[in-house]
Amino acid sequence: MAGNTFGELFRLTTFGESHGPAIGGVVDGCPPGIKLSEADIQPFLDKRRPGQSKFTTQRQEADQVKILSGVFEGKTTGTPIGLLIENTDQRSKDYGDIKDKFRPGHADYSYFAKYGQRDYRGGGRSSARETAVRVAGGAVAQKVLTHILGKAAKVRGALVQMGPIDIDYRNWSWAQIGKNPFFCPDAKAVQQWEAYLADIRKTGSSTGAVVEIQASGIPAGLGEPVFDRIDADIAKALMSIPAVKGVEIGEGFAAASLTGEENADEIRRGTDGQPEFLANHAGGTLGGISSGQDIIARFAVKPTSSILTPRKTVTTKIQNTDIITKGRHDPCVGIRAVPVGEAMMALVLTDHLLRHRAQNG
Amino acid sequence: MAGNTFGELFRLTTFGESHGPAIGGVVDGCPPGIKLSEADIQPFLDKRRPGQSKFTTQRQEADQVKILSGVFEGKTTGTPIGLLIENTDQRSKDYGDIKDKFRPGHADYSYFAKYGQRDYRGGGRSSARETAVRVAGGAVAQKVLTHILGKAAKVRGALVQMGPIDIDYRNWSWAQIGKNPFFCPDAKAVQQWEAYLADIRKTGSSTGAVVEIQASGIPAGLGEPVFDRIDADIAKALMSIPAVKGVEIGEGFAAASLTGEENADEIRRGTDGQPEFLANHAGGTLGGISSGQDIIARFAVKPTSSILTPRKTVTTKIQNTDIITKGRHDPCVGIRAVPVGEAMMALVLTDHLLRHRAQNG
Amino acid sequence: MAGNTFGELFRLTTFGESHGPAIGGVVDGCPPGIKLSEADIQPFLDKRRPGQSKFTTQRQEADQVKILSGVFEGKTTGTPIGLLIENTDQRSKDYGDIKDKFRPGHADYSYFAKYGQRDYRGGGRSSARETAVRVAGGAVAQKVLTHILGKAAKVRGALVQMGPIDIDYRNWSWAQIGKNPFFCPDAKAVQQWEAYLADIRKTGSSTGAVVEIQASGIPAGLGEPVFDRIDADIAKALMSIPAVKGVEIGEGFAAASLTGEENADEIRRGTDGQPEFLANHAGGTLGGISSGQDIIARFAVKPTSSILTPRKTVTTKIQNTDIITKGRHDPCVGIRAVPVGEAMMALVLTDHLLRHRAQNG
Amino acid sequence: MAGNTFGELFRLTTFGESHGPAIGGVVDGCPPGIKLSEADIQPFLDKRRPGQSKFTTQRQEADQVKILSGVFEGKTTGTPIGLLIENTDQRSKDYGDIKDKFRPGHADYSYFAKYGQRDYRGGGRSSARETAVRVAGGAVAQKVLTHILGKAAKVRGALVQMGPIDIDYRNWSWAQIGKNPFFCPDAKAVQQWEAYLADIRKTGSSTGAVVEIQASGIPAGLGEPVFDRIDADIAKALMSIPAVKGVEIGEGFAAASLTGEENADEIRRGTDGQPEFLANHAGGTLGGISSGQDIIARFAVKPTSSILTPRKTVTTKIQNTDIITKGRHDPCVGIRAVPVGEAMMALVLTDHLLRHRAQNG
Repeated sequence: MAGNTFGELFRLTTFGESHGPAIGGVVDGCPPGIKLSEADIQPFLDKRRPGQSKFTTQRQEADQVKILSGVFEGKTTGTPIGLLIENTDQRSKDYGDIKDKFRPGHADYSYFAKYGQRDYRGGGRSSARETAVRVAGGAVAQKVLTHILGKAAKVRGALVQMGPIDIDYRNWSWAQIGKNPFFCPDAKAVQQWEAYLADIRKTGSSTGAVVEIQASGIPAGLGEPVFDRIDADIAKALMSIPAVKGVEIGEGFAAASLTGEENADEIRRGTDGQPEFLANHAGGTLGGISSGQDIIARFAVKPTSSILTPRKTVTTKIQNTDIITKGRHDPCVGIRAVPVGEAMMALVLTDHLLRHRAQNG
Repeated sequence: MAGNTFGELFRLTTFGESHGPAIGGVVDGCPPGIKLSEADIQPFLDKRRPGQSKFTTQRQEADQVKILSGVFEGKTTGTPIGLLIENTDQRSKDYGDIKDKFRPGHADYSYFAKYGQRDYRGGGRSSARETAVRVAGGAVAQKVLTHILGKAAKVRGALVQMGPIDIDYRNWSWAQIGKNPFFCPDAKAVQQWEAYLADIRKTGSSTGAVVEIQASGIPAGLGEPVFDRIDADIAKALMSIPAVKGVEIGEGFAAASLTGEENADEIRRGTDGQPEFLANHAGGTLGGISSGQDIIARFAVKPTSSILTPRKTVTTKIQNTDIITKGRHDPCVGIRAVPVGEAMMALVLTDHLLRHRAQNG
Repeated sequence: MAGNTFGELFRLTTFGESHGPAIGGVVDGCPPGIKLSEADIQPFLDKRRPGQSKFTTQRQEADQVKILSGVFEGKTTGTPIGLLIENTDQRSKDYGDIKDKFRPGHADYSYFAKYGQRDYRGGGRSSARETAVRVAGGAVAQKVLTHILGKAAKVRGALVQMGPIDIDYRNWSWAQIGKNPFFCPDAKAVQQWEAYLADIRKTGSSTGAVVEIQASGIPAGLGEPVFDRIDADIAKALMSIPAVKGVEIGEGFAAASLTGEENADEIRRGTDGQPEFLANHAGGTLGGISSGQDIIARFAVKPTSSILTPRKTVTTKIQNTDIITKGRHDPCVGIRAVPVGEAMMALVLTDHLLRHRAQNG
Repeated sequence: MAGNTFGELFRLTTFGESHGPAIGGVVDGCPPGIKLSEADIQPFLDKRRPGQSKFTTQRQEADQVKILSGVFEGKTTGTPIGLLIENTDQRSKDYGDIKDKFRPGHADYSYFAKYGQRDYRGGGRSSARETAVRVAGGAVAQKVLTHILGKAAKVRGALVQMGPIDIDYRNWSWAQIGKNPFFCPDAKAVQQWEAYLADIRKTGSSTGAVVEIQASGIPAGLGEPVFDRIDADIAKALMSIPAVKGVEIGEGFAAASLTGEENADEIRRGTDGQPEFLANHAGGTLGGISSGQDIIARFAVKPTSSILTPRKTVTTKIQNTDIITKGRHDPCVGIRAVPVGEAMMALVLTDHLLRHRAQNG
């Protein structure tokens, strides 16, 4: 397994480079009989699409997805869904001067060490451009979740920290998220971030961020102990997003400082006769299996390494040199990571939903 | 895939419950011709073994491993290695009163929701007892790493935070780790932790912790983009350990607050003519592929939910009740998670080493 | 994936050598709530057990299976089922003289070429002894099939050809199979085979055979196009049995000589309102998906290569020599391949039943 | 795993229907640094392409393959290779009358039973059209084999039986294969087949066939016991080709009638100091591992079920009716199965070559 397939039963296989003719993928294992068209996928791609505000890269990509197979008369057939997105803005010249140098913080050197060569055009396969296909696959996953679980099943994300500035959770408003260029749920933080990021952008610098993904309406019982726990697969899914350096579930790293009394969520009989948790420190998973509570995960995104400040590096012949990464870059790649995180969460949940059905009928 | 197999090419499949007759596993894909005997595995199990200090559970388990196959005349043959550890101290009566109640913070309810039934004896499969087999498998992985990469290849772990008290990294001493019951690299922290944990233990409470795993001597080029990145697989591996709630690589969550200038590791030509990084904010991975630097990961362990304070919960018939979890519990499960974390890291690295050889010869 | 795991969702992982302390395996993915004990598995092992008639090897193995996990209070829990069979008759001395020679027709040379070494004791991992674990796993699979599909679901096998002598299908009687040492459904053929095999045995020779496996009560719709067709997975399953050289479904190789008119099974509305096929040339699969008809597969077993006639070979140092394979061998290994074939078919069907449920609910 | 991926380390994932806009696939795990362009793949597709003689379907498809990724500056990069073939001749009307009927011998009913619906246009996903992508993937595999093993590594196929008429192996000539429309290695058989097939075609009937695939220059040691034997994976690969009903290796079913003396291949020291087999009854595999001899496999192809004779069937509402399958069909689908069989063999061998390198360096 060379790494370009995600999932066991609901599987996304992707291909494509930043500056090749197209990127695309195959969704295999999709249940039959689900309404699906390009119009279901495009809105998700549009959220991730570059060039929508001054705070993201100015590369212009239509990111128009085409469904090549697996749908007939408006419904999925159960056969593989081929997805294709043509690259339209491949202005390669922008990247010409990095041909012979390894950009610090990028995958240039590690790819070269691995494969003995590399596609230097915009990072080739290591470019975050591949995440567009993840978003397309995640859109299909969302359709499956809704089809099987109903409308209550929702996967949503938000930016909760930019650089050193985090949101105030008491101000959380899902409605706010669509109203600012940051997917920020806290109107007050939006103002601070705007000022902060304008500054970062002006100096040609970049900043890190933290994204939170919440999944609600997910039944108890998903996850396969002992290795393919739902939290373990979420951790892999989110850590596989370019630039991500940490993942946590529920209390996450804060749990290290807690006592058992503070951390374990007590249970009561709910009004519907079902168990009801009195808190959600666990983030919706116990022993790696979903508990029926909201699943809550966060991931940290590092600042992009493409900055205007000259940096020390070596050439591909291992000679000392300096590099400035010009071009069209996101000052905070964490912003566009929000829809990607949603997609990865949707892929994990759909996969585990199908896995659960297999063993438990 | 029902979740009890880890790895693609170097694979560990495990079985067994806390109070069944035995736990065990199968290591498949081990290269042939490597010296291996029970004596190579036992020391790793002894590190994880309960009952070694007053700070871990008093359950007495010899944890004697038997190799049932895959080794002939002292060397691995390339065929699967069967591993068996008999359970000797299964004092089931300790757990009798949890038969009809879901312990808060444990997997009791989620397993019940998943499978419609559960083995309530000590948590059954959800007990951390299964991690003994991971440690045995990790010991084999360590042998493979050394065999292929030489003695420089090392995977080592330490406890770096207990409850709210973290270590001072400037005091780090690998030698110190074997001299205290906490796998702590900072002699000063040992004293603080002893006092803190004695208190926790006395009150029947518990505390969380953070573990750090370092892998050195690992070549550049390991990891399979885009989904099976080495960091993504490390995240999954560590998050799959019972009670883990967060994983980070290199700067981890701290990267969110950094700028590109602060975070990206610059490169110079080293004295050996190879690239040399001037820092390791990345934690040894770029674009999901190892860079040749030390791989550094941390994970947060929640406090065990088995505490003496009465807690609100429901019965299996969903009636309100209270529960006190008596028995023999670790006040800080993070301690014994150190050798488990080492094992999981060794399993990931060995798997990716073989995967790299497959594609790149 | 080093090859010792079979199945995707209902998976059997096996380990063990002919002359090691034990063989065993892990069944992962078994649905919960199914009654299971050693008594369900042992009868299947007894069918395969050596030493039951003068026509099979005289090696004495009790083949007593122990369930080590995954069953609680008499029912499967959904967690992995550990299986262990101790080797009791490991008379290694019998095999001492083959230590330095490659037996023609055996895996001695190919294993040596692959691994650079080999466990020469009775063929080590390449011995058909490993198939005992397949039979144990197949027994669990049969329980799952019955649990989900009801008693109509049956997997049964028979020997239909021994050496040049095949049965007369018009004499087929399932009842006859348990009454002779050959699993032969044709009482007349039994007599011929007895005479033929007595002769073969007397001269220290061996003979090939053909086994037929039939599965009834299997619903239409199992199999995953385009690669994991049910017939493709059956072909792999049966070809993976030691000494098997050919597999066919339905008409098999005879289909090559037929016309479309002769081969395609016509359909009528049955009395139950469901489609009813007027013939079963297809062997129960169309386009790689089960059609609801009986699934019928046959496989050819070569004569064992362990014979008393001296044969030309080379030593492990590649010097010319001769070899006679003494010891306790089956003159017709095809006989004991019958329960192994049943087991493999049951494993494939159970796996695909779970896979179907995953995608189609 | 929903069945549209083949291979473990060298993996082909395919998508696409007979009458959709395009078919395509992703090759993942290809080693880097191998020269590759469309011109390397196209000749293989041209061999399989319909409409090249009066003996194959008259559907006109250019079958022009486009490489969308994974190749840079003329060489593979190690990243996934996206492949696309547009469907140009989708004359759907030809198939309109089968919309509401299940064609006997086709997958119409079994797909309907599986998915609850079907793409009736030309069989949709069950059409042999998908094999074009297998051929494209196989072409890449052939490049890898040659790159790693040298020019001696060859995978070649031939039609060895058409209807009841088989070839005379003594007349075998590889050169002859390119000179007739049947991939027939025996000039004499060509004449007989021409007459036979002309007759079949005239009456709107169809006939079965047998294909033989030979692989030479393959080193000893490939294959993963005990389940992923090279012969087991070949069996699966060939049986997964549409219309295949049987697979055999070496002596195949004929081995059932042989004695151990006749069947086991003796060994001598060769002039190069390596073991040399005195015969190849085994077909190049011992214990499921390649022996270094030529690997020889055969598979039986049933006659296509699309014939002009009216056949009994039912409608999708399960009412009795008759059907005649007009349209553009191959009177002997076995012919075009030759390049598909070559492709599947190449895929298996490449996958196992990489798997072998992983474990054995």
